[in-house]
Amino acid sequence: MTDQIQPIILTGDRTTGPLHLGHYAGSLKNRVGLQHTHRQFLLLADTQALTDNAHDPDKVRRNVIEVALDYLAVGIDPALSTICLQSALPALAELSMLYLNFVTVARLERNPTIKDEIQARGFGRDIPAGFLCYPAAQAADITAFKAQVVPVGEDQAPLIEQTNEIVRRINRQVGRDILPEARALIPAIGRLPGVDGKAKMSKSQGNAIPLSASSDDIRDAVHRMYTDPNHLRVSDPGSIEGNVVFMYLDAFDEDPAGVEDLKARYRHGGLGDMAVKRRLEDVLQALLAPIRERRAALARDPEFVLDIVRQGTLKARATTQETLDDVRRALGLFAFDG
Amino acid sequence: MTDQIQPIILTGDRTTGPLHLGHYAGSLKNRVGLQHTHRQFLLLADTQALTDNAHDPDKVRRNVIEVALDYLAVGIDPALSTICLQSALPALAELSMLYLNFVTVARLERNPTIKDEIQARGFGRDIPAGFLCYPAAQAADITAFKAQVVPVGEDQAPLIEQTNEIVRRINRQVGRDILPEARALIPAIGRLPGVDGKAKMSKSQGNAIPLSASSDDIRDAVHRMYTDPNHLRVSDPGSIEGNVVFMYLDAFDEDPAGVEDLKARYRHGGLGDMAVKRRLEDVLQALLAPIRERRAALARDPEFVLDIVRQGTLKARATTQETLDDVRRALGLFAFDG
Repeated sequence: MTDQIQPIILTGDRTTGPLHLGHYAGSLKNRVGLQHTHRQFLLLADTQALTDNAHDPDKVRRNVIEVALDYLAVGIDPALSTICLQSALPALAELSMLYLNFVTVARLERNPTIKDEIQARGFGRDIPAGFLCYPAAQAADITAFKAQVVPVGEDQAPLIEQTNEIVRRINRQVGRDILPEARALIPAIGRLPGVDGKAKMSKSQGNAIPLSASSDDIRDAVHRMYTDPNHLRVSDPGSIEGNVVFMYLDAFDEDPAGVEDLKARYRHGGLGDMAVKRRLEDVLQALLAPIRERRAALARDPEFVLDIVRQGTLKARATTQETLDDVRRALGLFAFDG
Repeated sequence: MTDQIQPIILTGDRTTGPLHLGHYAGSLKNRVGLQHTHRQFLLLADTQALTDNAHDPDKVRRNVIEVALDYLAVGIDPALSTICLQSALPALAELSMLYLNFVTVARLERNPTIKDEIQARGFGRDIPAGFLCYPAAQAADITAFKAQVVPVGEDQAPLIEQTNEIVRRINRQVGRDILPEARALIPAIGRLPGVDGKAKMSKSQGNAIPLSASSDDIRDAVHRMYTDPNHLRVSDPGSIEGNVVFMYLDAFDEDPAGVEDLKARYRHGGLGDMAVKRRLEDVLQALLAPIRERRAALARDPEFVLDIVRQGTLKARATTQETLDDVRRALGLFAFDG
């Protein structure tokens, strides 16, 4: 069984909206590759999404199928990857509650990821307790699958360290390694900016290109994409740094030599924004057309998609319950069912 | 079905040690009465016990059966009351994690019960996150059973208020009363002091009389009981205030007129400590002998006791899962199984 020797990956997305090109470049594309060499679990993180969306659970629910559609559309293969729903895995909540006893409030507050996100979301003192506690919940997710590899953005690396602290504390207490430590897998490509040049692409900012974008949407988005504001005439030399069009070309154009050539001509002067944008539009249309088509076909059969999520979740239930039982047994808790 | 009209009570104990006379006076005795007029759930709170005993889960496990033995020994009738194990009810962890999103960290920190207990346990900044979060977990316990009445000590009343805040917030969000508010039932008798006169009776302080105390243990405990340190000679007038022997007589002697008579004679002078202690010893021996006997008989058949806990827990699983489903459905979360 190759299953036994493939390292386990846990990854996933909060179900707060359909995924976009930033997700594709930063993670989805990698996952399609990783599923051939790893045992990969993809978590539809609806419970985690609630930690800052408790006022709008409807949004969180509606987007479960949207994210699942995105996964399947980009080429996640349910025969190779397990897509599962966080809220339907009770062992995750049970492990989370257990782990909260193995981490102090002071430690959670020191977590740089949490600090940054509290600031970004403007929570201040009125941060929901669930949000403060989410590193423990994430440790539950990661360890429940006994994941050894967790692909995350650079800013999320401290969360993996927090997970490993809990793992070490429990392993030390029980006197053997019942839980593996996890390693952050940080993608080579940094975060893709929004089409407006802002650091973060997000649906709420209106600067994202969703995976389901129509041909017109793509054209419009590329058209209004941020370039070099000082590049007024075609003959002027242009700047590549911070130029979103080139950043997207770097991320998506499969002809890097061609991109280097365009960059040289742009820097020199004589290459207009429109010409570069035309190239990017072609690249993105070619990338997204099959994804959009596949997504639309799947969206016509939601029961088929939900059934994939159901099958994956049942498999994940067995895996996560087994880990919970291991941890409870090793800690010497009361074994009710056995 | 009388079940339908009886109010629901949730009560229980942390499984950190066998119960003692303080528990009997403060809650167990009432529960034996309440089970005839209420639908009563008794929670063996092993998960909550872990919030400050994560370093010693073994203690928490061992005491599950001890507390169950105490319940049955004092007259809790499994046909009238449901004894269930907290850690074997996954819906409680799931509701806890959900409720953490409906309460802020600032609000948890303001909870006077938590504040006091942090101080009493010497936690300071290194409080385990699970301990800070336990009001949300308690709200999960109470609401999972849709309990309307929760017997608590006066110092625990703020936890019920915290529960009701979460209940109101969820009911308001979903636009109807899916969860009932709970009412604190504060016992008429205040907290019983330790035999040494300290405010709190506890096993760890060595000042408690366990329900399983032998006849000799009871005699010794009464003998060293704190009275009036200024009452040196039998003929001296003695003081009743802070006199543990009289506090115990008030709590346990079923002849209050006789106790009043002893008090008058003690105050006046001419009644020795030994005479009063003899009376108390008789009372306690009479109270505890049948409890001890019953407890010892049950302890010889642990499988019988565990089976009662198992049956109760299965019943409680159905009840708590139903509530979780109700809450999830009302909030509009993804319904995986339905």
